[in-house]
Amino acid sequence: MSHYLNALFKPTSVAVLGVSENAERGGTSIFRAALKEPFGGRIYAVGRSGGEVDGQQIYRSIADLPEIPDLVFGAVGVRATPSAMVEAAEAGVKVGVVFTAGFAEMSPEGARAQQAMVEQCNHLGMRIVGPNCMGVFDRTSHLNLTSMKGVQDGSVGLISQSGNIALTMFTHARRHDLGFHSFVSFGNQADVPLIDYLEYMGQDDAVDVVLMYVESLQEVAGADFVRRARDVAAHKPVVAIKGGVTNAGRRAAASHTSRLSAAETIYSAAFRQAGIVEVTDLDHLLAVTEALLRCPPLKGSRIAIVGSGGGHSTIGTDCVERTGLDVPAFDSHLRTQFGQHLPPWAPVTNPVDMTGGFTEDLTLFRTLMCYPLSTDSYDGGLSYGLYGNSFKPGLVDDAGLTWESAAATLGALQAELGKPIVFYTPFAKDTAAEFTAMRRAGVPCYGSLAEAGAALGALRERGEFLARHDGASRSVLMPASTTSDAAPGGLVLTEFESLQILATAGVETVAQQQAGSPEAAASAADAIGYPVVLKAQLKDVAHKSDVGGVRLGLSTPADVRAAFVDMRHRLAVDETFVCSVSPQLDVDREILLGIRRDETFGHTVVIGVGGILTEVAARVAVLIAPTCFDEFCAAIARSPIADFMGEWRGKPAVDLQELHRLVNGLVEACIRDTGIQSIDVNPLVTVGARLVALDGAVVRDLSGSE
Amino acid sequence: MSHYLNALFKPTSVAVLGVSENAERGGTSIFRAALKEPFGGRIYAVGRSGGEVDGQQIYRSIADLPEIPDLVFGAVGVRATPSAMVEAAEAGVKVGVVFTAGFAEMSPEGARAQQAMVEQCNHLGMRIVGPNCMGVFDRTSHLNLTSMKGVQDGSVGLISQSGNIALTMFTHARRHDLGFHSFVSFGNQADVPLIDYLEYMGQDDAVDVVLMYVESLQEVAGADFVRRARDVAAHKPVVAIKGGVTNAGRRAAASHTSRLSAAETIYSAAFRQAGIVEVTDLDHLLAVTEALLRCPPLKGSRIAIVGSGGGHSTIGTDCVERTGLDVPAFDSHLRTQFGQHLPPWAPVTNPVDMTGGFTEDLTLFRTLMCYPLSTDSYDGGLSYGLYGNSFKPGLVDDAGLTWESAAATLGALQAELGKPIVFYTPFAKDTAAEFTAMRRAGVPCYGSLAEAGAALGALRERGEFLARHDGASRSVLMPASTTSDAAPGGLVLTEFESLQILATAGVETVAQQQAGSPEAAASAADAIGYPVVLKAQLKDVAHKSDVGGVRLGLSTPADVRAAFVDMRHRLAVDETFVCSVSPQLDVDREILLGIRRDETFGHTVVIGVGGILTEVAARVAVLIAPTCFDEFCAAIARSPIADFMGEWRGKPAVDLQELHRLVNGLVEACIRDTGIQSIDVNPLVTVGARLVALDGAVVRDLSGSE
Repeated sequence: MSHYLNALFKPTSVAVLGVSENAERGGTSIFRAALKEPFGGRIYAVGRSGGEVDGQQIYRSIADLPEIPDLVFGAVGVRATPSAMVEAAEAGVKVGVVFTAGFAEMSPEGARAQQAMVEQCNHLGMRIVGPNCMGVFDRTSHLNLTSMKGVQDGSVGLISQSGNIALTMFTHARRHDLGFHSFVSFGNQADVPLIDYLEYMGQDDAVDVVLMYVESLQEVAGADFVRRARDVAAHKPVVAIKGGVTNAGRRAAASHTSRLSAAETIYSAAFRQAGIVEVTDLDHLLAVTEALLRCPPLKGSRIAIVGSGGGHSTIGTDCVERTGLDVPAFDSHLRTQFGQHLPPWAPVTNPVDMTGGFTEDLTLFRTLMCYPLSTDSYDGGLSYGLYGNSFKPGLVDDAGLTWESAAATLGALQAELGKPIVFYTPFAKDTAAEFTAMRRAGVPCYGSLAEAGAALGALRERGEFLARHDGASRSVLMPASTTSDAAPGGLVLTEFESLQILATAGVETVAQQQAGSPEAAASAADAIGYPVVLKAQLKDVAHKSDVGGVRLGLSTPADVRAAFVDMRHRLAVDETFVCSVSPQLDVDREILLGIRRDETFGHTVVIGVGGILTEVAARVAVLIAPTCFDEFCAAIARSPIADFMGEWRGKPAVDLQELHRLVNGLVEACIRDTGIQSIDVNPLVTVGARLVALDGAVVRDLSGSE
Repeated sequence: MSHYLNALFKPTSVAVLGVSENAERGGTSIFRAALKEPFGGRIYAVGRSGGEVDGQQIYRSIADLPEIPDLVFGAVGVRATPSAMVEAAEAGVKVGVVFTAGFAEMSPEGARAQQAMVEQCNHLGMRIVGPNCMGVFDRTSHLNLTSMKGVQDGSVGLISQSGNIALTMFTHARRHDLGFHSFVSFGNQADVPLIDYLEYMGQDDAVDVVLMYVESLQEVAGADFVRRARDVAAHKPVVAIKGGVTNAGRRAAASHTSRLSAAETIYSAAFRQAGIVEVTDLDHLLAVTEALLRCPPLKGSRIAIVGSGGGHSTIGTDCVERTGLDVPAFDSHLRTQFGQHLPPWAPVTNPVDMTGGFTEDLTLFRTLMCYPLSTDSYDGGLSYGLYGNSFKPGLVDDAGLTWESAAATLGALQAELGKPIVFYTPFAKDTAAEFTAMRRAGVPCYGSLAEAGAALGALRERGEFLARHDGASRSVLMPASTTSDAAPGGLVLTEFESLQILATAGVETVAQQQAGSPEAAASAADAIGYPVVLKAQLKDVAHKSDVGGVRLGLSTPADVRAAFVDMRHRLAVDETFVCSVSPQLDVDREILLGIRRDETFGHTVVIGVGGILTEVAARVAVLIAPTCFDEFCAAIARSPIADFMGEWRGKPAVDLQELHRLVNGLVEACIRDTGIQSIDVNPLVTVGARLVALDGAVVRDLSGSE
């Protein structure tokens, strides 16, 4: 496979910088450990003092090496690092891994040094991994430039922004009989972006599933990330956890859209759209990885639960339902089938509780699970019992099967039917041969029902993505947007100015006249027809109803005049006070539609409950633009506003095709006019089949850039 | 201690029924196992066939025993059980434990047999534990009537509705160095209610914390449960998990209040009000138990995080913030103090990341944690690092400390300052002496950051409860309500009828006139003053606006007449069509206030976002009546409507004292008139300082019982 990161994962030659005869840390320990691996290429030690280590010469500089290495690994001091890396770049090295910390994560000076180093190296044709990272390993090349030894071999690819989260994964993976094929820690992500590692592992046939710990993407990379990650996820499962969920940004933000689309929500939207399965609980990460590695995806949401033990039935059902899956009741035919194998008091509605009967027949899990999964009514299964019971070790059933030899029967059923089965037993928090046997047979075996539920939820998410993503390249409706950093504040345009921008972008806006006097307002109302709405036009006020700037249901010219005078009296700061006059529509529902320029993901879209309850309800769907229509509909359908956007309280459903068109028009407007920071349309109302913007707030950069 | 359940936990003599010479299961195995324990009383075997087992005589009936035992344990067949229990009751036995399944959990016949057995036994003065339970043990009396051996000794009391959840707790507890003093499994809870076991363990000085797995409480027991459980929680931590979270009830229910107060929400409200710490993830149950056992409660929400490792800092902060706690930044004085011990690149804003420095000084965790916790600005701490690193076993620092000997330093700090500290290391998923040493020193040591976060959240919940509950008996404002089973359906009264009931209960209702003709409506409007609202009075329609039964903002007599005609045309089924006419108020916010009779908890109260978005927003606080004012305010403050009830969009906060008075008035009305199933006031609006009911729907039992 041809990829520039072959120089990182599968280099033909490597130099480790910062090696010395007497040191036990840093470069020296990395070099000595790497030497012990059966790495097929050449590995060189470089250190200012020269000498020897483990019988290998320590070269005084890269220039002294017998060949130009593909890769250098730098664990020298923070001050010495930039010149060492530039020296390597000048020599023609392709990739430099900077283990050293003390750059952008520490201080503004560190950030400047980091940026200068990257720019110089890039200019010379060398790419930088890190700084502040823990290295790399690959089991095809047998390169190991990390301090981690004894990591179990396997087919997981791990991409981690943090070294100690990686160490945690390596430590806990043996509980799931999981092993790793390749690993890279990318720390500050100063140069090579996450997506490049993901694409590399996506192309590596020895990697079956990619696991990522992400704190941040590079700025502006977001929309591009979604597109490229989706291509990887189309043929290989990708799991991610996002670290760093701060409330600070949300609190400080000025607009509805910003407050309702915190960083975590936007990352979640990006992961979903890219087909990456997101896990929010670190404790579930390996459980989900195991499921995606071993099981076929769930093609539907209906789970059959066949276990032993009432409490586990109850909690198991809770855990499955909490992930949004269903546990539909078994019909009488199935109940009869179960009943043939069970005592009369055994519950046989979903879940089936075999009340311990499996201890006489260890294949009972398979026998009973086969009934529902053989029908078209169930898409996957959860099974559990005191399997591997440490209170009854070495149990052998009447047919001579042991826990270990029985394990394969469930795996064979999964393989035969193409429907996933996961297993739970409280004893599987410990490692033991019987659990390993079950996993080898393809059935994940968990020591936690919450993990089993999360695993099934992830398998459903993967199934949904694969069904939505047909593998062909999707035509998106517009080019990926270019973005720039949003200014910390911004200028809120008046309603009138904002609605003009909306209208230009193709949004139907409410008919509106501007009036600078009570008489002008009344005559505008006469022309429009009663009842009318009067709204003060105020610059830089996001919620004009909060300050008494909105009067609804004005029915007579006298009412309009009085409302104008009252409003001017309370709100006007100068002679230029202006109100808008507009017809009062018979509104079905009020929607919030927001577009915001995000420094990572380009343009993000928020659709939610609008009106004065926007933030109390806090019910939204979040998307990364651009979206195709299928993806748009899928995002709405899985969001908390699905019901609100459908037929609701006797009103017709929102026309999603039209809404999608509006969103695209507004995003295009933002791309054309880069001075726009955000657009809130609130409310965008439905009036029968129409979508009409009643009010809007466009925020422009204070810098005034156009 | 004097309690009728002494006969269960600390009997002077016990008889095990269903013992035979040749059997290996059921009563025989329980009897043989119990014999091996150093039980101080007498234990007898009873079995129809007589004979001997392990050298002990098997008596043919209870009547043959040399004394009347306090307790019988029944593991005979389901048909033989009732007569065996009644025989024991007739002999004067105080408590019977029914291990046997096949009663109410299986079928209506089983339920009838169970009820008859309990009634007969109770009549004769004997109480029943179970049926369908796993038995009991107690470490003071050394009675063990369970199949579980080798359960670690300790000071946790476990009350579990399910046997296999108990087994799970026993199996996983050694990961937390937790042990158990006493245990009871209560299965179908046919007689002795959960609260009695809780009160018993509450009085037992050998139990330091009570852990409960609950699927259901007995009907009608709920309100009483809250009061009595609170008395236990006042002097001993109680932790509970609720199993069985079904969506079915919610889907089927008729009123807002029912749909927004699913069983899980009501149980959560009851646990909160009772001071019971609820855990929703079974995986966190022992972690929380460990924290409540070892640590002082959190007196505030501000957590100092002092650890080693960037990724763990990030995820750790997420886990703490997700429980609602704060991680406030360290000030410059603290940063300087940390800086004295750390390299310049170590982050010293909250969290502190000591970047591995602890490997030279194993007391660094204590040294650094001492700085923030010694100030008044932090209430507790989370610490973590690769402590007990399996990659560096047997590490000894420069001062000669080992992991194990260093552990006590953190515990001493916690004891000294009275502020809780919890610890995380990825290696603590395994048991090892260094983690045990830390726990013995009082510091919970977790292998999961999510568990550490949950533990701190639980310690805060306990702290809040203890601050709220002053230990004195609280005067509640009304007697506990009596309840009766709600009928499956009910009759929705008209708005007019409903508002009359509200007014009688002391709620201000909107002025309203009934009109049976367009002319009557217009003249009512003239009398009230424009604009007015016209609402159709429809029996059995919960959402009249959905069917076009509400017209707002009518400004002229002609508008009123036209609206009446139009509404009558579309909605009237007969000549008796009536509308209400009421003034259109200048409303600040719309609130939902609902009271519902719950078969377990008596009267439950739902307060939330009202109006047409009630269910889209689904933002509510749920309470079990009666509440004192402090508890009422606390429930609102921790609910998602806290902001909505405070100062909001320029409008004054809701008068909670007045709202509490309204709630109590409505609950009293429901207690007086037991025919009322539920009351929805929606909307209850705020108009300045006033609370006014604009609409209401009272649902009466169809049976018409008054």
